Amino acid sequence: MTALRYDEVRETTEALAAPLSAEDQTVQSMPDASPTTWHRAHTTWFFETLVLNGRLPGYEPFDPAYAYLFNSYYETLGARHPRPHRGLVTRPGVAEVGDYRRSVDKAMGELLERREDPALCGLVELGLNHEQQHQELLLMDIKHLLSFNPLHPVYSPDGLLDGPGAALAPAAGGWRAHPGGVVAMGVDNADERFAFDSEYPRHQALVEGFEVATRLVTGGQWLDFMSDGGYRRPELWMSDGWATVQSLDWQAPMYWEQLDGRWHSFTLAGLHPVDPLDAVCHLSWYEADAFARWAGARLPTEAEWETAAAEPPEAGGADPEGWFGRVWQWTASAYSPYPGFRPSAGALGEYNGKFMVNQQVLRGSSSATSSGHARRTYRNFFPPSARWAFAGLRLCRDAS
Amino acid sequence: MTALRYDEVRETTEALAAPLSAEDQTVQSMPDASPTTWHRAHTTWFFETLVLNGRLPGYEPFDPAYAYLFNSYYETLGARHPRPHRGLVTRPGVAEVGDYRRSVDKAMGELLERREDPALCGLVELGLNHEQQHQELLLMDIKHLLSFNPLHPVYSPDGLLDGPGAALAPAAGGWRAHPGGVVAMGVDNADERFAFDSEYPRHQALVEGFEVATRLVTGGQWLDFMSDGGYRRPELWMSDGWATVQSLDWQAPMYWEQLDGRWHSFTLAGLHPVDPLDAVCHLSWYEADAFARWAGARLPTEAEWETAAAEPPEAGGADPEGWFGRVWQWTASAYSPYPGFRPSAGALGEYNGKFMVNQQVLRGSSSATSSGHARRTYRNFFPPSARWAFAGLRLCRDAS
Amino acid sequence: MTALRYDEVRETTEALAAPLSAEDQTVQSMPDASPTTWHRAHTTWFFETLVLNGRLPGYEPFDPAYAYLFNSYYETLGARHPRPHRGLVTRPGVAEVGDYRRSVDKAMGELLERREDPALCGLVELGLNHEQQHQELLLMDIKHLLSFNPLHPVYSPDGLLDGPGAALAPAAGGWRAHPGGVVAMGVDNADERFAFDSEYPRHQALVEGFEVATRLVTGGQWLDFMSDGGYRRPELWMSDGWATVQSLDWQAPMYWEQLDGRWHSFTLAGLHPVDPLDAVCHLSWYEADAFARWAGARLPTEAEWETAAAEPPEAGGADPEGWFGRVWQWTASAYSPYPGFRPSAGALGEYNGKFMVNQQVLRGSSSATSSGHARRTYRNFFPPSARWAFAGLRLCRDAS
Amino acid sequence: MTALRYDEVRETTEALAAPLSAEDQTVQSMPDASPTTWHRAHTTWFFETLVLNGRLPGYEPFDPAYAYLFNSYYETLGARHPRPHRGLVTRPGVAEVGDYRRSVDKAMGELLERREDPALCGLVELGLNHEQQHQELLLMDIKHLLSFNPLHPVYSPDGLLDGPGAALAPAAGGWRAHPGGVVAMGVDNADERFAFDSEYPRHQALVEGFEVATRLVTGGQWLDFMSDGGYRRPELWMSDGWATVQSLDWQAPMYWEQLDGRWHSFTLAGLHPVDPLDAVCHLSWYEADAFARWAGARLPTEAEWETAAAEPPEAGGADPEGWFGRVWQWTASAYSPYPGFRPSAGALGEYNGKFMVNQQVLRGSSSATSSGHARRTYRNFFPPSARWAFAGLRLCRDAS
Repeated sequence: MTALRYDEVRETTEALAAPLSAEDQTVQSMPDASPTTWHRAHTTWFFETLVLNGRLPGYEPFDPAYAYLFNSYYETLGARHPRPHRGLVTRPGVAEVGDYRRSVDKAMGELLERREDPALCGLVELGLNHEQQHQELLLMDIKHLLSFNPLHPVYSPDGLLDGPGAALAPAAGGWRAHPGGVVAMGVDNADERFAFDSEYPRHQALVEGFEVATRLVTGGQWLDFMSDGGYRRPELWMSDGWATVQSLDWQAPMYWEQLDGRWHSFTLAGLHPVDPLDAVCHLSWYEADAFARWAGARLPTEAEWETAAAEPPEAGGADPEGWFGRVWQWTASAYSPYPGFRPSAGALGEYNGKFMVNQQVLRGSSSATSSGHARRTYRNFFPPSARWAFAGLRLCRDAS
Repeated sequence: MTALRYDEVRETTEALAAPLSAEDQTVQSMPDASPTTWHRAHTTWFFETLVLNGRLPGYEPFDPAYAYLFNSYYETLGARHPRPHRGLVTRPGVAEVGDYRRSVDKAMGELLERREDPALCGLVELGLNHEQQHQELLLMDIKHLLSFNPLHPVYSPDGLLDGPGAALAPAAGGWRAHPGGVVAMGVDNADERFAFDSEYPRHQALVEGFEVATRLVTGGQWLDFMSDGGYRRPELWMSDGWATVQSLDWQAPMYWEQLDGRWHSFTLAGLHPVDPLDAVCHLSWYEADAFARWAGARLPTEAEWETAAAEPPEAGGADPEGWFGRVWQWTASAYSPYPGFRPSAGALGEYNGKFMVNQQVLRGSSSATSSGHARRTYRNFFPPSARWAFAGLRLCRDAS
Repeated sequence: MTALRYDEVRETTEALAAPLSAEDQTVQSMPDASPTTWHRAHTTWFFETLVLNGRLPGYEPFDPAYAYLFNSYYETLGARHPRPHRGLVTRPGVAEVGDYRRSVDKAMGELLERREDPALCGLVELGLNHEQQHQELLLMDIKHLLSFNPLHPVYSPDGLLDGPGAALAPAAGGWRAHPGGVVAMGVDNADERFAFDSEYPRHQALVEGFEVATRLVTGGQWLDFMSDGGYRRPELWMSDGWATVQSLDWQAPMYWEQLDGRWHSFTLAGLHPVDPLDAVCHLSWYEADAFARWAGARLPTEAEWETAAAEPPEAGGADPEGWFGRVWQWTASAYSPYPGFRPSAGALGEYNGKFMVNQQVLRGSSSATSSGHARRTYRNFFPPSARWAFAGLRLCRDAS
Repeated sequence: MTALRYDEVRETTEALAAPLSAEDQTVQSMPDASPTTWHRAHTTWFFETLVLNGRLPGYEPFDPAYAYLFNSYYETLGARHPRPHRGLVTRPGVAEVGDYRRSVDKAMGELLERREDPALCGLVELGLNHEQQHQELLLMDIKHLLSFNPLHPVYSPDGLLDGPGAALAPAAGGWRAHPGGVVAMGVDNADERFAFDSEYPRHQALVEGFEVATRLVTGGQWLDFMSDGGYRRPELWMSDGWATVQSLDWQAPMYWEQLDGRWHSFTLAGLHPVDPLDAVCHLSWYEADAFARWAGARLPTEAEWETAAAEPPEAGGADPEGWFGRVWQWTASAYSPYPGFRPSAGALGEYNGKFMVNQQVLRGSSSATSSGHARRTYRNFFPPSARWAFAGLRLCRDAS
């Protein structure tokens, strides 16, 4: 079963890269983004370095230099190529990275057939979840790159991952009340399903009564915010947010531009008019927070969000309030360790723990999130100024 | 009573400025710091703009230009002089600002005598607490400025505010256990004592069992951390912290320098050898966090800190565990609104609320904190990279 | 004679500082500028380090730390305080620097009385010319500082050094032809008058026939340039100049601002309407060059300028074409060594030679230049983007 | 004849790009460099915009968007894609740019067959010389890009353009004297051979007696300079040069790195030990100037260089002093207009004139210069800090 799932996830990455030319796959559009080839190679490096090495007898690294080139941020695993220089590596290229992937996949196939190591399954599952994270990053990063092209290139015309209707928000827009009290959140150690270390341990939290919006904030609501001077009124913004609005001259969400007097949004399916019924996307936390203040509401805390959400539906199942599969939802919570948090041992301890400052948590998932990757306890995070994630918001307010 | 207290607080500011020459009072050493004259003028502007204007019949502003020059960050009150340019204003100078202070004090005296407005008392109290905050900022900022002088100038030789022994830590160093449970924190609306809006409302929090150190981390412990490679081991640091260590080449706390092979610290009383028994001071949150990890412990959360601390002692009273009056103590908590937080109305709503992102909370008080200004519920905050506050740490750990 | 002149020059510096408060004298408004106290101390350091030390028997430095604090850029003389930190030194202050000056002046008096060293006279003359350069820098720098004050403070109301009429340009505006040929330029070694090493040796240059404007470009002409889109037309500008115009949003000369629809200029005598008959001032080389192109002319080369100019008139003498005492005049020439240039020996070799790249030459002198300091061969220089010098231009063109 | 030459030059560009993958051709390694595809497209745009448009009846631009994408710096020709963003355009890619080249070449073929316009020949010749300049830039830029790859990739193993022996300097190293006097330099209007506008007009200059080195400075000499502390002795450097050495931590020429205790140089033929007999290359003007001072000599002026050099030899001819085909040679001269310089009319006037400030002139040619492109009057230029050109130096000194 793991072997099947392994193949499926690995193939998904290559399928996401398939519409991209060698040129597209090579360029790094900002220090926070990575080239497609890098994502393809780094996810492979993860299996080679953290799974194959020392587990598959006689395994020799595909190329010893790759350990340096494709380490992302694991200090424990030695020196690494500087992140802002990822786009300066043109060799190995698209084809050589394809060879690398096939070679590691073959070795992984052998290892998985042996079924010797009981810890192997968890480690592979981590590698696959890691790769799924990079699948969404690959889409974020390629969208960012293509957005600089004045010709508005199209990644995929079908728009399923990102395009008109991909983040359609429910039409109804009311509030749902929750009485508050002591709630449980996070993942239990006994739970068999995969979760990242940051989601552990299951613990209790105190929540006061609150009401949560039953739909995501839409493009139409955002146009209202803009018409009402949302980007020009300092009283709506955090101090750092207002400084950012002014220094970067923000006047609309990322990827929005005006064409013939009408707002359009650049998507992976090209440039399209903003759909007032789609969930608004590509917001920073600063913008989400300012909008909520303007609307007389606020962002939910992580505990509120997790309490109010259900689990993501099975494929084809209903999610009438849009908690998953449209846009990530910024929360009011800074990314901090849960009480009793223990980072994983060794290099894997660097996976989440060392980012637990200067970041805000997002919950849910987006239309670009890999299938089967979402869950109610999932903690995504970005700095409050980041806009290139597929991120929007859902409102919350104190119980009246 | 208020009039007496008003005079006392206002005179304290002038007493703090008294050892400083006109030259000292004028310079701004970094964008985050302000000149002494600016502190003296801005605290006066606060009373003029937010108390006198519209309350004292016939009051005319001392100089209409000052409303622009000495507004700090109140967007609601109009345009203001850019913060990094505060040190470029040499007129009004030290003497003119003295005149400004006296003029406003005279008008405030008249207003306080009238005792007409029941809301006046709270507003004046806010102004005085605001001024006390600036008293400590004045000391932080002047220390920062003087530290650039290669001649190591002395602000005050007695060292009471900052110098050898000012932050003496208790000799004993054990742990005190707390069972956890639902605890109350924050300030009740019915409480008569002054508190900032960020400390409201009183609310419940869930705390798991924990143990808190009964003394502050000392200079001696910090020397051990340094000897053990603390500033060279990435695994001890948050990712952003490690990047900061490398880009700014941090090798010791701020103001430490080596002289003849021995670590010294620049203080307001001049350059002195690091005292291993003093609480270590001038740390960033990144350093405090890394030290705690090195020590096999962690920083306390706000809730833990507030649960474990007592109220500050009366003058001369005992505080054997050093919760107040030595160094501010970094907590694990990001600065966020309490559940049910409501910012004050009008311009005062900008006092705290708009800073509730990208900051970490500090608790307690320092040797440079104004007398009577500390309390158990007080929430101080700085960005995690800031080092020029009088900040150290106290360790905490999960119940064993 | 030297002693008299020594006193006169030294007293002039103090007279220039006299209208300035301690606050004014302390602040550094940009890395390229220096505080008044620094100018006062550095010119004193020059005499102490390069004249007194080793020449006056038994002379002890006033304060050994000053050698570090007040060295400007002489690598040969050891480490020095970083230039951008000059404004962070508040002690020694205005009074202590006065003491320093008096102490060195006293020692210099003794040394001058001895008349022992034949080389002394030339060295003292260099020190006095050095101090005169700093007198003009002091005025440039204090103007720059005061210009940041929104209250438009006045340095001196009489406006003789800088203010309405200080740079009055002759009314007539024709061209004067020169036939060209081999001309001599620079200073002869046999010349007894003082000159800087960069003005040596006297040498021949080939000049083609040219015509030079008989007056300086005026504020009125500059307003015409602005009306004609001068700051918005890239074809008029050097590539680097146009990039600077755009990045710094230049729309007028430095210190110009619009008030009630009319252009004003901030001067040492306060804010005054632009006088269309005054020579335009505070231009970068980029602006001077663009204006010349707009006017169908060009800047003169150094050789052309020196050929066309007369010597500066005695005090009260006539200079109907305004070559001296109004504004420095940008030339087309990059600052380069003359053929056969030999830098002075020792530390003094750093005086000029090491700046002979990335700088353009200015000729003449300004209303802020010290009396007696100008001469026809004088080579002033600044980077092409610098605007805070008292610099304007005179047009030139090829012979028709 | 022109058609033949057109094809030859255009094919050379494609031959230079041939060893490069699509990945290599796409990346921009710094704002000053451009991707290979951009060079291939921009040189084509030049013919399309400045030759074909309006001359070949019925010619339609290949793609109207290319006028914006591939304009380099011609303000006269409208808005253009920002230079630092050239590496963010992945579509059109390598193949589409090939189509563009073929399409324009076909149209150019038609135009050249018509032989109607007498001015056409000069314009095409300009376009071809422009393309030859970009051929060397393409090599400079691709070397810069590949140098970031820790795997030291090889562009071409034969090393003819850049590699061991490509810049072999003559073994002999004496001085050749020139008596000085009035010399002629620049290009005569009557000259039939192509030259850039900056080389006009032919004019006279005065040169004092001088001696020029009969060989280029070698790698061996540079190693001596380094051993003697060349990069650590401020007295050898211009002030701006020394600041650059310190801020960028220069310790050797660009592309040099130590391997097993021996200096190697990264070349287009891979990493090779520094050959002490090769001309040293990849120097900034600051380094060349400092070396000359260290050697008790100086850089030649443009007039000296042009006076001392012969014309480049025919293919296979002898150039025993190495004036051409090894390394460009920095001169002492800032890049300025010659007396009587007139920029070309229209957009072509932007070709050279607007760069005549902040640049130093280089003379000669390098091993990477296109065949037939060099001449004695050629004026190449770069800012004094630029190192990625194939630039070295030849010494000069005053007549003894």
